Amino acid sequence: MTDILLREDRGGIATLTLNDPGTLNALSDEMLAALAGQLSDIAASDLRVVILRAAGRAFCAGHHLRQMQAMRQAEDGGQAAFADLFDRCAAVMGQIRSLPQPVVARVQGLAAAAGCQLVATCDLAVAAEEAQFGVNGVNIGLFCSTPMVALTRNIGRKRAFEMLSMGQFLSAEDAQAAGLINRAVPMEALDASVDDFADKLAGKLPSAVRIGKGLFHAQAEMPIDDAYALARDAMVANLGDEDTAEGIQAFLEKRAPRWTP
Amino acid sequence: MTDILLREDRGGIATLTLNDPGTLNALSDEMLAALAGQLSDIAASDLRVVILRAAGRAFCAGHHLRQMQAMRQAEDGGQAAFADLFDRCAAVMGQIRSLPQPVVARVQGLAAAAGCQLVATCDLAVAAEEAQFGVNGVNIGLFCSTPMVALTRNIGRKRAFEMLSMGQFLSAEDAQAAGLINRAVPMEALDASVDDFADKLAGKLPSAVRIGKGLFHAQAEMPIDDAYALARDAMVANLGDEDTAEGIQAFLEKRAPRWTP
Amino acid sequence: MTDILLREDRGGIATLTLNDPGTLNALSDEMLAALAGQLSDIAASDLRVVILRAAGRAFCAGHHLRQMQAMRQAEDGGQAAFADLFDRCAAVMGQIRSLPQPVVARVQGLAAAAGCQLVATCDLAVAAEEAQFGVNGVNIGLFCSTPMVALTRNIGRKRAFEMLSMGQFLSAEDAQAAGLINRAVPMEALDASVDDFADKLAGKLPSAVRIGKGLFHAQAEMPIDDAYALARDAMVANLGDEDTAEGIQAFLEKRAPRWTP
Repeated sequence: MTDILLREDRGGIATLTLNDPGTLNALSDEMLAALAGQLSDIAASDLRVVILRAAGRAFCAGHHLRQMQAMRQAEDGGQAAFADLFDRCAAVMGQIRSLPQPVVARVQGLAAAAGCQLVATCDLAVAAEEAQFGVNGVNIGLFCSTPMVALTRNIGRKRAFEMLSMGQFLSAEDAQAAGLINRAVPMEALDASVDDFADKLAGKLPSAVRIGKGLFHAQAEMPIDDAYALARDAMVANLGDEDTAEGIQAFLEKRAPRWTP
Repeated sequence: MTDILLREDRGGIATLTLNDPGTLNALSDEMLAALAGQLSDIAASDLRVVILRAAGRAFCAGHHLRQMQAMRQAEDGGQAAFADLFDRCAAVMGQIRSLPQPVVARVQGLAAAAGCQLVATCDLAVAAEEAQFGVNGVNIGLFCSTPMVALTRNIGRKRAFEMLSMGQFLSAEDAQAAGLINRAVPMEALDASVDDFADKLAGKLPSAVRIGKGLFHAQAEMPIDDAYALARDAMVANLGDEDTAEGIQAFLEKRAPRWTP
Repeated sequence: MTDILLREDRGGIATLTLNDPGTLNALSDEMLAALAGQLSDIAASDLRVVILRAAGRAFCAGHHLRQMQAMRQAEDGGQAAFADLFDRCAAVMGQIRSLPQPVVARVQGLAAAAGCQLVATCDLAVAAEEAQFGVNGVNIGLFCSTPMVALTRNIGRKRAFEMLSMGQFLSAEDAQAAGLINRAVPMEALDASVDDFADKLAGKLPSAVRIGKGLFHAQAEMPIDDAYALARDAMVANLGDEDTAEGIQAFLEKRAPRWTP
């Protein structure tokens, strides 16, 4: 495990901590590689939930601009390296979406540009009231085009265009109202709130959550009839699980389910 | 008419009442068949509006779990029966969407799982402040995959994923803020509010409403240029109606339209 | 320049004023032609922002109903002329979307039917608290099918269907909560607020804004993986701009960028 990304597993919950506060946890080559590795490992595990948090005063300030400027020294001025960077970044976002486990972002400070994309990509997000959310690349001449993809799948168009084109920040309260995060809480209540989300998620039947999360992202992009066909298959697969049969029976008998540990 | 689903027609408004309070108006085989029959009959009628309401303390608690558990006795463990059940349920949801008449849900209590899907599927929904909305199947190990399809076409992703994966309920006030319902009102004002919606809808030109509702669902799934092409054709068809010509002329002459009764 | 549509350019900002208050700035044949011409001219210019405003008490009341009724005298009862009208109107909406410059609607009064469509189509919208927003054609027997296309790409389904089928109006405050506009402000603060939006947008790097706006509309209709591929290409193109290289470098050196004037 690399120092730039910490991981702790406890009670079925993996906690990943972006640990590069000196760069405001920038999505450097190293950070992207570390995230890709850990997410791949977690995907193959029997862990139930992932918390994504960050060390220091920022959650994540986006891409590593110094590394990007250095890429310009290549013969093509960096074009191939830039394309590769955004492909690797989009692949990590894709890993979060396709992960069997739900991912909860714990946002304690600034989430800017690709950092805001990370929040938008996580399945759930809880933030401290002090946190701020922006896709502010336009302010330095680089429109947040890749963050836009995740952002516009979370919030309405008028507000998304405003954030992207004007580069201003949303408060956590406004981010919640807009639909970018699930909850804004006082800083002193942040850990308790994130733990409450994670503990509740960890208590659900993992096979059911896995089926549901997979369908969630797939069906969102389909015509409704295709979505229902896929959802039907998901229900049939879910019902074929013995633990689900037991869960329903327990409910009918007004007792707690005895699920496979 | 079966007892499990009541229907009363008055003033161009059909009121369907889910009438199986002993099962919290579960979408049993019988209830789905009754709904399919009545919706088919209403689609062919000259009725103008449908109100969908429920008897007892719940609006609808979702699928009939005892019937589902019984399906497991089949040789395939119920797989074919489950697939058939969700196809029949999705077909009823499709009938509501394709019905020429707008459908207003009157939600007086719990709307859970497929009951919440029903609310999300109706064109409009008015609820008592006491009503609660959840897609809580995950709590018994059955992720609400089919309700997800309707829910995610009403509300934002972060909140939808939270409801689906954590299984908690929204109050009517929160459901309104999220976009799942149109209005949360005190219980004593519920009937007046629903009647106000229905009466206003019944006063519109039915041919215009039929064209508009059909387009509403079709264009939502299209690229914007295709949507505009279909909308243009809808406008031309709508304008070809003599009552619409009269409606526009009456407006220009500042008088009430004389529409075909 | 025709009298029906005024244009003033200042500081990189083009201000278009719908100037037919006698028709409540209806989208007549003449108005659509004037808009098409000016938008085409602006697209080819190096202007940075467009403000769309209106003279008189209404922003825009929609199509020109008297012209439309006159079209009925054709042999086909107006069918070909109606189809052509809605194609021309959709083309103007498409010009707004594909314009390199962001378009800010300044809404001081009624925005009805295709006037509401215009607000929904603009990238950003600021309104006076007195403004009202409706897609109320259903009240005269003509469902707002074409406005629906733009409206449903801004706000949630339940509320959109309510506006379309019941024909009532939203206040500016409710329009903001619904996502149809960015800001509702007191009438006396309207110009300052719109100018603030325009000035901030005019201060951004135009090439970045152009790339971002183009992607914004294109990626919204794509599966997420395709959207990310297009966004990657947008990022690479954006990074290839010398002004962007300077913008990033200036940020790293904590100084103001020296952009090409």
